[in-house]
Amino acid sequence: MNLLKQFSYVSIFSFSCYLSSQYNINKADSLNIIKVMSMQEKAWNQGNIDSFMEGYLESDFLVFSGSNGPVYGWDETKEKYKKSYPSKEIMGNLSFVVKNIKSISFDVALMIGEYQLRRSSGDSSGHFTLVWKKIGNKWLIVSDHTSSSK
Amino acid sequence: MNLLKQFSYVSIFSFSCYLSSQYNINKADSLNIIKVMSMQEKAWNQGNIDSFMEGYLESDFLVFSGSNGPVYGWDETKEKYKKSYPSKEIMGNLSFVVKNIKSISFDVALMIGEYQLRRSSGDSSGHFTLVWKKIGNKWLIVSDHTSSSK
Repeated sequence: MNLLKQFSYVSIFSFSCYLSSQYNINKADSLNIIKVMSMQEKAWNQGNIDSFMEGYLESDFLVFSGSNGPVYGWDETKEKYKKSYPSKEIMGNLSFVVKNIKSISFDVALMIGEYQLRRSSGDSSGHFTLVWKKIGNKWLIVSDHTSSSK
Repeated sequence: MNLLKQFSYVSIFSFSCYLSSQYNINKADSLNIIKVMSMQEKAWNQGNIDSFMEGYLESDFLVFSGSNGPVYGWDETKEKYKKSYPSKEIMGNLSFVVKNIKSISFDVALMIGEYQLRRSSGDSSGHFTLVWKKIGNKWLIVSDHTSSSK
């Protein structure tokens, strides 16, 4: 193998490593995001939508997309949750399973996951795509697209 | 109104402007993203899934979430499209309506939109959340969560 060829292989290998590594999220950021998810799970299971909403960016920018299309804004999203889940019984017991977290930029992360809702009125489950934004040292959800399983 | 009060009002106003302006995408980026969407629409309506796929980041990082959960990777997403839409007739006529594009970081944008598919075998419609990443001067989709309307 001549030197030029060797150099090419090293370059291609380095570029491939760069391409895949740029999407890996660091451990600290990943842990901080998981902490917010755990807080949300706990708040939900205490019937506390106000605390649950602390995981979302408190801004008109926030967008939640469910089966009925998008809802824009933190206030509107909170109202939607309160309307759809008017009691602790209807809220049931929520658990998240995080499948994947990747960095898209130094301050933006993408999460793929599943949710399960167990309750006497009927279980529910589905999957979600969350976009997280780091503001200061805090990670917050700026976009939530959740689909119920059929 | 004393000077200190005036200063406080100006500070709060400036901070609010900063908060809302940081999510506004510039015209050039917005136009480049719309161009990719138009290219995808055109490719789809010519029955060309290979060209349609050029709007997505060609990487294992890409994630497409539909009614059956997430599909990871560009190759896998292309395969899914080809399996679900095996002919030009089944692909039908696609049109996108972009509802909202916002900047999340200097190289990441979020798009909310609707799609309509008109075809002899039955129309279909729904809404999507796309996450775009700027790589060099090119904007590409890195995450697509699409929900069909019920």
